[in-house]
Amino acid sequence: MTLRVGIIGGTGYTGAELLRILVRHPYAELTAITSRAEAGNSVAELFPNLRGVTDLRFSDPGNTDLDACQLVFSATPNGIAMTQAERLLRAGVRMIDLAADFRIRDRVTWERWYEMTHACPALLDEAVYGLPELNRKRIRAARLVANPGCYPTAVILGALPLIEKGVVNLDDIIADAKSGVSGAGRSAKLATLFSEAADNFKAYGVSGHRHYPEIMQVFREVAGSAPGLTFVPHLVPMIRGIHATLYFKALDTNHDLTQLFSDRYAREIFVDVMDPPGLPETRSVKGANTCRIAVHQHAGGRVVVLSVIDNLVKGAAGQAIQNMNIMFDLDEDAGLDRLALVP
Amino acid sequence: MTLRVGIIGGTGYTGAELLRILVRHPYAELTAITSRAEAGNSVAELFPNLRGVTDLRFSDPGNTDLDACQLVFSATPNGIAMTQAERLLRAGVRMIDLAADFRIRDRVTWERWYEMTHACPALLDEAVYGLPELNRKRIRAARLVANPGCYPTAVILGALPLIEKGVVNLDDIIADAKSGVSGAGRSAKLATLFSEAADNFKAYGVSGHRHYPEIMQVFREVAGSAPGLTFVPHLVPMIRGIHATLYFKALDTNHDLTQLFSDRYAREIFVDVMDPPGLPETRSVKGANTCRIAVHQHAGGRVVVLSVIDNLVKGAAGQAIQNMNIMFDLDEDAGLDRLALVP
Amino acid sequence: MTLRVGIIGGTGYTGAELLRILVRHPYAELTAITSRAEAGNSVAELFPNLRGVTDLRFSDPGNTDLDACQLVFSATPNGIAMTQAERLLRAGVRMIDLAADFRIRDRVTWERWYEMTHACPALLDEAVYGLPELNRKRIRAARLVANPGCYPTAVILGALPLIEKGVVNLDDIIADAKSGVSGAGRSAKLATLFSEAADNFKAYGVSGHRHYPEIMQVFREVAGSAPGLTFVPHLVPMIRGIHATLYFKALDTNHDLTQLFSDRYAREIFVDVMDPPGLPETRSVKGANTCRIAVHQHAGGRVVVLSVIDNLVKGAAGQAIQNMNIMFDLDEDAGLDRLALVP
Amino acid sequence: MTLRVGIIGGTGYTGAELLRILVRHPYAELTAITSRAEAGNSVAELFPNLRGVTDLRFSDPGNTDLDACQLVFSATPNGIAMTQAERLLRAGVRMIDLAADFRIRDRVTWERWYEMTHACPALLDEAVYGLPELNRKRIRAARLVANPGCYPTAVILGALPLIEKGVVNLDDIIADAKSGVSGAGRSAKLATLFSEAADNFKAYGVSGHRHYPEIMQVFREVAGSAPGLTFVPHLVPMIRGIHATLYFKALDTNHDLTQLFSDRYAREIFVDVMDPPGLPETRSVKGANTCRIAVHQHAGGRVVVLSVIDNLVKGAAGQAIQNMNIMFDLDEDAGLDRLALVP
Repeated sequence: MTLRVGIIGGTGYTGAELLRILVRHPYAELTAITSRAEAGNSVAELFPNLRGVTDLRFSDPGNTDLDACQLVFSATPNGIAMTQAERLLRAGVRMIDLAADFRIRDRVTWERWYEMTHACPALLDEAVYGLPELNRKRIRAARLVANPGCYPTAVILGALPLIEKGVVNLDDIIADAKSGVSGAGRSAKLATLFSEAADNFKAYGVSGHRHYPEIMQVFREVAGSAPGLTFVPHLVPMIRGIHATLYFKALDTNHDLTQLFSDRYAREIFVDVMDPPGLPETRSVKGANTCRIAVHQHAGGRVVVLSVIDNLVKGAAGQAIQNMNIMFDLDEDAGLDRLALVP
Repeated sequence: MTLRVGIIGGTGYTGAELLRILVRHPYAELTAITSRAEAGNSVAELFPNLRGVTDLRFSDPGNTDLDACQLVFSATPNGIAMTQAERLLRAGVRMIDLAADFRIRDRVTWERWYEMTHACPALLDEAVYGLPELNRKRIRAARLVANPGCYPTAVILGALPLIEKGVVNLDDIIADAKSGVSGAGRSAKLATLFSEAADNFKAYGVSGHRHYPEIMQVFREVAGSAPGLTFVPHLVPMIRGIHATLYFKALDTNHDLTQLFSDRYAREIFVDVMDPPGLPETRSVKGANTCRIAVHQHAGGRVVVLSVIDNLVKGAAGQAIQNMNIMFDLDEDAGLDRLALVP
Repeated sequence: MTLRVGIIGGTGYTGAELLRILVRHPYAELTAITSRAEAGNSVAELFPNLRGVTDLRFSDPGNTDLDACQLVFSATPNGIAMTQAERLLRAGVRMIDLAADFRIRDRVTWERWYEMTHACPALLDEAVYGLPELNRKRIRAARLVANPGCYPTAVILGALPLIEKGVVNLDDIIADAKSGVSGAGRSAKLATLFSEAADNFKAYGVSGHRHYPEIMQVFREVAGSAPGLTFVPHLVPMIRGIHATLYFKALDTNHDLTQLFSDRYAREIFVDVMDPPGLPETRSVKGANTCRIAVHQHAGGRVVVLSVIDNLVKGAAGQAIQNMNIMFDLDEDAGLDRLALVP
Repeated sequence: MTLRVGIIGGTGYTGAELLRILVRHPYAELTAITSRAEAGNSVAELFPNLRGVTDLRFSDPGNTDLDACQLVFSATPNGIAMTQAERLLRAGVRMIDLAADFRIRDRVTWERWYEMTHACPALLDEAVYGLPELNRKRIRAARLVANPGCYPTAVILGALPLIEKGVVNLDDIIADAKSGVSGAGRSAKLATLFSEAADNFKAYGVSGHRHYPEIMQVFREVAGSAPGLTFVPHLVPMIRGIHATLYFKALDTNHDLTQLFSDRYAREIFVDVMDPPGLPETRSVKGANTCRIAVHQHAGGRVVVLSVIDNLVKGAAGQAIQNMNIMFDLDEDAGLDRLALVP
């Protein structure tokens, strides 16, 4: 079986990563990739790692028949997928949006955080939040999948077993998260220039970051009520990787929480729970779709969870392919690596 | 006036940084620097940035008359200064130890964390913890100064006003700290090789780090009782810099905590409190003796403090020189920069 | 068909890279990997990227029956393979040495550059220099393959067509080469610490580097006489990658040298010749077994060739696997990538 | 004496570096710094390393009386200084242009390489090329100084003694140069994003770079005829630093060329010639105004010169201040460091 897929807007890092995975995918064939700016140009010219691997060219969105695809990935900036979704779904094409257009179910919340009017509120309820470890069944049946943000993926997977089981105090969760620079995207910005970001470390978005309401939405649904969450993202001088350091208070200090995580993720091929005292490194998942987690229980009930992903893979394109595999009943790991590039 | 100073063991990064500062110090003259391994070799050969700036050579500790110095810095690994201190003090030489030998007043605690028998417990009580912003008066009179660790400097300065004023819940303080690789020293270790540490991020010492009891000792003294502290250090792929992200719960949400910090540090030339919403970057203090701090007050009483230093300057050699300046009644900023090298 | 292979000394970066490739190789099964220091330990503990991918453990060289392998890779430091080769070959095991023991055919030259007595000069003549693009036929039949050095691979592939065709002045070739830090290996050395190698650039080995006689040997054989070669290696603050900038003088300025390269490598799946004006980046081959080359012809006959490889893949482990594939009549690209990890 | 100086366009890296040096300069007072985009904003807000060090604000070029300055630095992109120079000179203000407007004496050559019509050809002849080691006397008297480019500074200082003495073959000089990313400036460009430039190495401008005619102009003047020069620049994943590797053929192999360099630069405080076999590192001049040089003489007459500078200091702002010091008879090293920030 060959699955015909298309990509809208494949010139950013998530688009490039979709390409990198799809060109080796055993069951999917990339039939079109659109870009207004790069229309006509060879994909391998823009992304030199694809030379000799694909002859694909970018096509103009206006001239591209995406309706012939069975699945379309939207890898555009926020605000584009919501203008395309209805038409594609009507044509029988399923869609995975790697941007944020369908991640927040509450329209008012979305519009406040994203500072736009939502162009397609009708689909907000139908869209499925594409975290396989949480929503696998619904993803399988979904027409429209909202692929999670990178920070939310690392934070939610590192918190899920604790919140589901109700073993930690929900009033006071701290997520101190650190991201590589590719998380800021491939558009030219002063703050992500090499000479600004290298040999430096800083927090940002301390007063509010768009991934906060996304994490909160999941926590609220799982817990049944809104938790107290403090989320502080930081910028690390590395290309790929997210490291979330999560702080909880255990309600009962006798639980073996590593066991709780191991049980919860026993059948998840892309979540790896380390034995204590585990110290997952971001490079241990570089290029891989794995989320690697370690749980540290301190005296007095303090729990520290360390959770790492590659922001472009499990935090974006890899997870999108995982969702595709689920939606079309393919092997869930088809085309995806658990083996990282180290050093 | 010229102050005659010596350095014991100046081949590590803190020794190199002492050299960098002392060769331009207006009032101090470095008369000797000892190293068993490098005895006879030119300092500028080992540290190429000193070529043309100093003709000094390393001398053998056995042949070096440090008694002629007014002040000796010990920049050796832990466990050496404690074997030298009594003799030097008896000879009328004052001493600043940049290692950890005299940082912990409680001998049992020290021996447990440092896994050595303390060779000089008699001086533990006399040694002054060399954080000028806390102990300036006692430093002025001290014969023996224990220069603080790098993490403790960043964490304590970011917490001090809150703990002194008792405006936060002491039961539950979280210090999520991140350090550049130079903090691990200049000895050849696998974990700090370029190919291991570059393009990577990880936590370490989650089960226990030697800077934990040091921070706790200060917090306990300032608060009057032992607080609950969780301290998690991380390794950042940059050379210099510490970024401490500190999480507190305010007891009263009406305080203007930035004002509290500004007032507390109003006369401190090496502490810079930013207006909200400040986001201090580690590079903004690269090469400088400044600690730069921003305070974020969230709804619900959560307080996030960001505190950055250069681990080799305010976190080590710069603070040692600041202590020297205080001990000998020199301008406190003599030889020290507030201007960082950016980009 | 499954090929039984073993690795001697798999704890360095080339060993780790052999592991990374072999665990996904469709036809090879790694049956043993020896390490005196790590005997009994899990491979995935040492190399966290292999967690969940292999259960293999290091075994003691004394207790390991490598004779049951059809092929053994030696990934030890220089000087070990030459003590193992005779015994293995006698047992009918073929061998690929990733170190330098069998790269130089002239024993006296080898001993001068490597400062050791050669333990197995009898095999120097039989050993085949494992550059497939030069010696494919002899590799196919070889019992013992000397896998080329990383610099020689990049330099030779960037020079071969010119030297074979005799279109450049052989008296005066300049190879200005730049390498990532992983080329220096995984042993703890001061010069390759993060804080020494990051944010820095330097030449080294200007007075003489062991890869010089290796390149010269190939050039001499291909040209029929010894050329004049100046080789200057440099250290780049990146993990993987070699960039060779080669300077030649064309004897005839009318040749289309890009065409010459394209023709020469037309059937080579791991050599990619770019159209002018090509600027190959090292990251375009990160993790891939590709050598990417561009040729620039300047007015006056000056020719500049740019040649990039991943030093751990085409410059070491990938080329070794390519040699294995050739020796055992497997698809030459089995298990090997042409797709790089970018960004 | 206090010298009143102004800066036009101080928001790039060379402007920031001028600021960093001028705020500590003992004799100069920065009275105005203009920027259309940042007018009214505090300098310390844009450059966080200046917090607490200066209260200066950017002013609008239209409202700024630069005529009251004795010296104005132009740190704008190419093409601006040439529109300001005549007016300032007429008002009696001397000028140092850190861009390229007055570096090339031949108008036609300049217009071809810079793809603009020159707005002020009348001053091309008067402008003095501001390399103190070459033109100190003329700089002292100059009204208008063209501050050299970064690559030309490293390359020319590494070649000057050889060309002046005529001891090398002028037909065939190769300059293989490597630069840190800050050399590309502080404007947002895709190619200099962290995720594009980090962990990567590449050549660029192989078909032609604007610093080529600048180097050629000096070589031609010094040699008396045009040499044959091949110049290939490369991008290094580090912030600051240029490393030029220069290849010459000696006409007479008996010369001690290190001695020749030492003699030539004996009275130059910012040129440091190392004894053989010297390997200057870029970090050894980080933040310093030093050019550090080593000369390697190989058998057969091949000469390799290694020359390093900090591209923002000796390659831009530091050299501009050195020129200022010369023009106003100040100590030539006033405000300038020879001490680098290492590690």
